[in-house]
Amino acid sequence: MSFNTFGHLFRVTTWGESHGPALGATVDGCPPGVELAEGVIQHWLDRRKPGQNKYTTQRREPDAVQILSGVYEGRTTGTPIQLMIENTDQRSKDYGDIAQSFRPGHADITYWQKYGIRDPRGGGRSSARETAARVAAGGVAREVLKLLAPGIEIQGYMVQMGRLRADRDRFDMEEVERNPFWCPDAAAASVWAAALDDLRKDGNSVGAVIEVVARGVPAGLGAPIYGKLDADLAAAMMSINAVKGVEIGEGMAAAELTGVENADEIRMGNDGPMFLSNHAGGILGGISTGQDVVCRFAVKPTSSILTPRRTVTVGGDETDLVTKGRHDPCVGIRAVPVGEAMMACVLVDHLLRDRGQTGGQTGGQRGRIGL
Amino acid sequence: MSFNTFGHLFRVTTWGESHGPALGATVDGCPPGVELAEGVIQHWLDRRKPGQNKYTTQRREPDAVQILSGVYEGRTTGTPIQLMIENTDQRSKDYGDIAQSFRPGHADITYWQKYGIRDPRGGGRSSARETAARVAAGGVAREVLKLLAPGIEIQGYMVQMGRLRADRDRFDMEEVERNPFWCPDAAAASVWAAALDDLRKDGNSVGAVIEVVARGVPAGLGAPIYGKLDADLAAAMMSINAVKGVEIGEGMAAAELTGVENADEIRMGNDGPMFLSNHAGGILGGISTGQDVVCRFAVKPTSSILTPRRTVTVGGDETDLVTKGRHDPCVGIRAVPVGEAMMACVLVDHLLRDRGQTGGQTGGQRGRIGL
Amino acid sequence: MSFNTFGHLFRVTTWGESHGPALGATVDGCPPGVELAEGVIQHWLDRRKPGQNKYTTQRREPDAVQILSGVYEGRTTGTPIQLMIENTDQRSKDYGDIAQSFRPGHADITYWQKYGIRDPRGGGRSSARETAARVAAGGVAREVLKLLAPGIEIQGYMVQMGRLRADRDRFDMEEVERNPFWCPDAAAASVWAAALDDLRKDGNSVGAVIEVVARGVPAGLGAPIYGKLDADLAAAMMSINAVKGVEIGEGMAAAELTGVENADEIRMGNDGPMFLSNHAGGILGGISTGQDVVCRFAVKPTSSILTPRRTVTVGGDETDLVTKGRHDPCVGIRAVPVGEAMMACVLVDHLLRDRGQTGGQTGGQRGRIGL
Amino acid sequence: MSFNTFGHLFRVTTWGESHGPALGATVDGCPPGVELAEGVIQHWLDRRKPGQNKYTTQRREPDAVQILSGVYEGRTTGTPIQLMIENTDQRSKDYGDIAQSFRPGHADITYWQKYGIRDPRGGGRSSARETAARVAAGGVAREVLKLLAPGIEIQGYMVQMGRLRADRDRFDMEEVERNPFWCPDAAAASVWAAALDDLRKDGNSVGAVIEVVARGVPAGLGAPIYGKLDADLAAAMMSINAVKGVEIGEGMAAAELTGVENADEIRMGNDGPMFLSNHAGGILGGISTGQDVVCRFAVKPTSSILTPRRTVTVGGDETDLVTKGRHDPCVGIRAVPVGEAMMACVLVDHLLRDRGQTGGQTGGQRGRIGL
Repeated sequence: MSFNTFGHLFRVTTWGESHGPALGATVDGCPPGVELAEGVIQHWLDRRKPGQNKYTTQRREPDAVQILSGVYEGRTTGTPIQLMIENTDQRSKDYGDIAQSFRPGHADITYWQKYGIRDPRGGGRSSARETAARVAAGGVAREVLKLLAPGIEIQGYMVQMGRLRADRDRFDMEEVERNPFWCPDAAAASVWAAALDDLRKDGNSVGAVIEVVARGVPAGLGAPIYGKLDADLAAAMMSINAVKGVEIGEGMAAAELTGVENADEIRMGNDGPMFLSNHAGGILGGISTGQDVVCRFAVKPTSSILTPRRTVTVGGDETDLVTKGRHDPCVGIRAVPVGEAMMACVLVDHLLRDRGQTGGQTGGQRGRIGL
Repeated sequence: MSFNTFGHLFRVTTWGESHGPALGATVDGCPPGVELAEGVIQHWLDRRKPGQNKYTTQRREPDAVQILSGVYEGRTTGTPIQLMIENTDQRSKDYGDIAQSFRPGHADITYWQKYGIRDPRGGGRSSARETAARVAAGGVAREVLKLLAPGIEIQGYMVQMGRLRADRDRFDMEEVERNPFWCPDAAAASVWAAALDDLRKDGNSVGAVIEVVARGVPAGLGAPIYGKLDADLAAAMMSINAVKGVEIGEGMAAAELTGVENADEIRMGNDGPMFLSNHAGGILGGISTGQDVVCRFAVKPTSSILTPRRTVTVGGDETDLVTKGRHDPCVGIRAVPVGEAMMACVLVDHLLRDRGQTGGQTGGQRGRIGL
Repeated sequence: MSFNTFGHLFRVTTWGESHGPALGATVDGCPPGVELAEGVIQHWLDRRKPGQNKYTTQRREPDAVQILSGVYEGRTTGTPIQLMIENTDQRSKDYGDIAQSFRPGHADITYWQKYGIRDPRGGGRSSARETAARVAAGGVAREVLKLLAPGIEIQGYMVQMGRLRADRDRFDMEEVERNPFWCPDAAAASVWAAALDDLRKDGNSVGAVIEVVARGVPAGLGAPIYGKLDADLAAAMMSINAVKGVEIGEGMAAAELTGVENADEIRMGNDGPMFLSNHAGGILGGISTGQDVVCRFAVKPTSSILTPRRTVTVGGDETDLVTKGRHDPCVGIRAVPVGEAMMACVLVDHLLRDRGQTGGQTGGQRGRIGL
Repeated sequence: MSFNTFGHLFRVTTWGESHGPALGATVDGCPPGVELAEGVIQHWLDRRKPGQNKYTTQRREPDAVQILSGVYEGRTTGTPIQLMIENTDQRSKDYGDIAQSFRPGHADITYWQKYGIRDPRGGGRSSARETAARVAAGGVAREVLKLLAPGIEIQGYMVQMGRLRADRDRFDMEEVERNPFWCPDAAAASVWAAALDDLRKDGNSVGAVIEVVARGVPAGLGAPIYGKLDADLAAAMMSINAVKGVEIGEGMAAAELTGVENADEIRMGNDGPMFLSNHAGGILGGISTGQDVVCRFAVKPTSSILTPRRTVTVGGDETDLVTKGRHDPCVGIRAVPVGEAMMACVLVDHLLRDRGQTGGQTGGQRGRIGL
């Protein structure tokens, strides 16, 4: 991971600004022979697309992806895949006010302090529009998973909005697609809807916690010490705009447990070893256990709000700033498909890395248990 | 970050197992001309050293570091620095029982499932002894900081043990060195001592939360999107043994805030812009703001406990396992200097990367505010 | 260097196929504040452009570059620069014959054997059209050089076509732009023109040697052992299509010298140490000396020729193949601007890496001689 | 490739100076389950060992390798392998004279100009002693090849010393082990012996050309564009001390061929496609063809000679320097096992990378021809 590239063998480099002509992702190292069409990637982009309901920004972007390279007759060739999404609904005038001021909570000031130049239109490179490129790359990754590890399913959902938590006892994964919050607890989604309406009318915003689960991940993905599966997931999720915390399994709550409580005990099942609990979130020593890989991350409230906040200008004058424009009152909602995309990219990268070093699932060098 | 290497320009590769002849770190890309002596590194190793009080493992390791390369007449030459620590107090017989069984909560099973071979003595590569190499590398990093960014101070401390939280109102940073928990709240440290005694006698263990703060970090460190300072910190901390969650600034609690609450407002101070709060933990858009960089991570309870836990053997038999040997009842304690070391390494790497791309603090291309 | 990315801090990832909708380069890690306009890049692309004279392919491509990201108000922002060149003159029908056969000397067979799929249209990814993306990236690199090391000049030229060598005694660097061979020896260029006419009429082709010189490179660029300036130049040039050999300074002829002959002796000049010769090609121990950096590479003859050659089909049938289409009789000619571009990219990458590790030319840690 | 690390999945980081306590290599990413013992690595180190005959330096180093990590019960575990070689015969006093002067042809001046500090004892990091670490790492790589691609054989030999070329018509590969020049032409070896005696007595030295061939390399190794097998070989060989040119197949002579001559025509053999010649040196489009991979490199004459050469001191005084100490009159001789080691490392890295992306030789996605 460096600069704008993510991954070691399955390498995603994203590019583009919020209000430039286009943005996209260069996906390098993709295995050959993977079936890939724009429509498949579009499916995932449509889930992230703005303007779908009153809880997300009203910017209207079709987010139509074009595959410019790396695919021939519907299959990947093993060469770099260029995915381009044109920006069509830029309203740069919305941002005229902020070219000279730094929006609190935004990267305006740090980009300026680092580079001495910034594209102020819509936040430029630091805009959440960059995550469209991630979702497109994640669409490619999902097709690779279908070929290499067909049992893997990735699902993201919101488990908390502000101080309101969903109730795990009410979780029904089929509800996730049925409410605008990707929430598996239908009752919570209703409560959130009302609460978010109020916040939006107040010119305010709120944070959220998203959980992403990958089911059917084979044991053995990861690498010792610094190339750990959980270290890469942590980097992947923390790299998403506005994310301030990442958890694996019990996460921060692991601190509260005793060793007796935390041990995921093991018994023999019909298909080999079987864990009796999953406090570890499917990862031990940086390597997947075969259980569900469970990752959560917190998204801070949208910093672009209609309530005036104190700030300074490039010239050093103090001012109060209201961020007009079209913004998500809870940007965490649209982070759900982004988190799924990052999970997919990390898993593909680790599948390839594992296959490289060990021969992978069919490599024959893996240790067997009880056989 | 890949495999056993951390960092892009300041690159640390650690090697070695718990019970092999030695372990160490290869530090590549270090700037030349940095004063470096074994004693300076030893200072930091001594803080992490086991056996210093009853709350850490009774393994007695001098952890004496040798510099084998990269230093000439007391200064770094710009070539790779090899830091070696010999293992002297291996008692591999302690581990005879577990060569055929998988300790719950440990990486025994995943290493076996991935590689088909594992060094069972003390956990082999997955042992927390690997963190000695990190601390040694961190000692080098701290000397680089002295030269390149002399104002930076890094301090780690424990803020929570189990369900017991330190009280920020009682924080006194001078207390950190005065109790075995590196706790800035002396009263909490007393309570923790009693609680940990009980747990230890019960053959149990407990988790912890560590906070690492870097003060005096200049604005402008970090890189867009995937090479973000917070993404690299997340990977760095999550790569430490037993860590299950990482937070920057407000961390997971950011989800609970509204945009009005979360905005770190800005005013002009005597030395330029000044933030009125630090919910962001010193990082916006992946780039440092000049405020304190605040990072927290949760360490799960030690999995090696004297209470029997259910598991299976390599042969597939079900068994109950008690992990004898010499273990930390709260491994989080010794994670404090490790977290500090990772912070130091990340900051040096980003200082060099920033200097490479922009010319760094004296590069003249940075944006000024109000001047 | 991995897959389709070149460089460590100044990172160029190219993408695209010969007959796809577009090709391009993602340039990541570029310093901010560099003046950059499409016209400047276009200047270099025009030099590589096909169809300019009878010695190059008659494919008519405007090779018009578009900057899609990373530039704001005419200056780079430090974020990834996407350079896109649309393909406009694909005549895929020219390649219908070869979809089922492997052209000798081409990568058709190896791409097939590796990936099990290939885009046969114009060689797909292995086409020399990819080098347009390199030249575009090199155009960016040249602008960075102007800012960071304004004294550097890069010039490439042909020194040999087939067995016909240019005569260094007749070299006049102003001639380079005056003949279609980029040859500094006008007399040789005339001879080559006649010879190439004959070869072209015979349906044959011929190889060439290109020399690329960088003047004004400061001392101190490079890194020990594996990140050497010469090792990176070797990789850069060898990665260009059809290149089979790379030389630094004396190159292969260094084998013929004695130590007495080969030593570049040193005296004090007005501005510091001064070498009395440059057998080393400006690089000692992988680090630049301040002398001209001199690199040469051999380009094999174009494999696409009108003379029938024996080959096999995908189905395993033996056949004779004539490669129709529009091809360069001496592809080495158009490799000249490509070699220049690679030199520019390598130098920028090393300038940034050197600045990262040592502080660079103004870093103050460099060793002085005689001062 | 960056700094002191070579390889992408099979990653070798070397460390150590000529006169420090030790040097070595950290080999990361090695597949698990590879049989490995110190004796096997020692075999290859003994071939490179100095002091074996009058044509190599008289420094007496046992070059005894110790495996400090990554191997358990005689097999690799998949974790980093630390290989350490202690320096035992340092005579630093030999180098007292040169601490203040820059030896022409050496990296003394560039290390000084870059870093402002250098270890002058024996050239420090830039000494050819570093190649012992490469040979040790190459010994590991060869064992990996035995497991993953057992048909591969790597052989290096000298084909030219000064202006004296071996005659390919007299090549007998069994002669390679029978003369101190690793020369397959016994008659040439005799002539070289006499010529080198004369040069040595004259206080002079001479260059050489080494050829390294890898037989039995499967088709399909390599990666498009920048991660090409030949680009990586070029970097690998150019990174060896004193190397000034690298060739694949016809190398620089490819420039002299016509397309008709250069085409390696293809017919069907019993086991699939069969090339009728190997001008390409076993690589097309950066990917192996299944033919012998043929690489050559030129080594410049040893710069440490007893003939005085003009140079300057750190203080800027002009002086004449004679390099005493114990030096190879033809350092190319000992470069033979080093070239073999680099070939082995490159091939393992590409085998793993290929296996990662495509599934490798047994991955089932490769294209078949005629089946």
